[in-house]
Amino acid sequence: MERLRRLVLERLMRYYRFLSESTARKPVQTVTSAQIAEALDIDPTQIRKDFGAIGLLGMGRVGFDVCEVCRAVRVVLGFDESYEGVLIGTGNLGGALLAYSGFARYGLHIVAAFDSNQRRIGAKVAGCTVRSMRAMKPFVRNRRIRLAILTTPPEVSQKLTDRLVSAGVKAIWNFTPARLTVPSGVLVRNERISVGLSEIAYHLKQ
Amino acid sequence: MERLRRLVLERLMRYYRFLSESTARKPVQTVTSAQIAEALDIDPTQIRKDFGAIGLLGMGRVGFDVCEVCRAVRVVLGFDESYEGVLIGTGNLGGALLAYSGFARYGLHIVAAFDSNQRRIGAKVAGCTVRSMRAMKPFVRNRRIRLAILTTPPEVSQKLTDRLVSAGVKAIWNFTPARLTVPSGVLVRNERISVGLSEIAYHLKQ
Repeated sequence: MERLRRLVLERLMRYYRFLSESTARKPVQTVTSAQIAEALDIDPTQIRKDFGAIGLLGMGRVGFDVCEVCRAVRVVLGFDESYEGVLIGTGNLGGALLAYSGFARYGLHIVAAFDSNQRRIGAKVAGCTVRSMRAMKPFVRNRRIRLAILTTPPEVSQKLTDRLVSAGVKAIWNFTPARLTVPSGVLVRNERISVGLSEIAYHLKQ
Repeated sequence: MERLRRLVLERLMRYYRFLSESTARKPVQTVTSAQIAEALDIDPTQIRKDFGAIGLLGMGRVGFDVCEVCRAVRVVLGFDESYEGVLIGTGNLGGALLAYSGFARYGLHIVAAFDSNQRRIGAKVAGCTVRSMRAMKPFVRNRRIRLAILTTPPEVSQKLTDRLVSAGVKAIWNFTPARLTVPSGVLVRNERISVGLSEIAYHLKQ
């Protein structure tokens, strides 16, 4: 299958999240594109097209088999294969991410957390022992970790990214405001939660 | 001052976060546009232009006064005025947001959390007592709450949004996959953390 465009990925993700969360509460066997369309405000034709692109065929008025849709999206997006990630930086945001148990649904298991703050090393954050930053590179190399989640101060983000990439990391989930440079083949995904807050504060001020 | 465009807001936010986080660790009095440019990978000319737009003038080679920059951004973005928000939905993500103490820096104080799950009501999450969803509307109205953070199941997001807006809320910070419809004058800011995860999983699978 050809590489899917980012917008298609985002929609597949939203279908998956919607279906897996709704069925977790009230099991249903089938869903129509019209039902998904209404909940997510996406054109039903677009939904059928996206489903068709990953090999899903509807059954007329009955719609789509929910399990089949979820399985197909999991396979396409890679959630069916679980993978290990490490957390770098265990401040407020890092702690919140460690405490969040919803990542397993997407295949991600955070297996270690690292910090350079001497007072944090050895402490437990959300059940995970904080390790020294010096242990980061050997750990990543030995465990063949491919994802690192970055919640450090921005000045050290690039330096740490370089070390992580040289240890074999293939994706950086960047929660810091720094823009990171990486070799081709390595993905940086930036999350800008504080940008959301600034937009809200600015709007409320008007 | 005319309304700033979203991209300018995002950059101002990144400058602010960079400066406030770096100076929290190592106090400095001045910063040059070149130093910010290097850390954030933004053109220094752009930085000086953004600063000029909010009335900040540099002092030649010395650069900008850090306190003055932070104060100006706080005023422009509205962080100088603290405001109260409520959290709707206290699942994993909601709990992580409640536990995160970094929002105060942006003026936001989460003063109450609501859930419809009978087993959660009355319990403490990150020091905050979970209230019944039935108490939401009167609370929002009486305290004149203007921001609601939504981490509920997607099917109830729109219904809750309607109730929040009718109670006076002016901004919804939406962490659910639902797309929300609101009257003009109300802001919806969507955060799609799981979209980030899906992009990462898809990349690692290739």
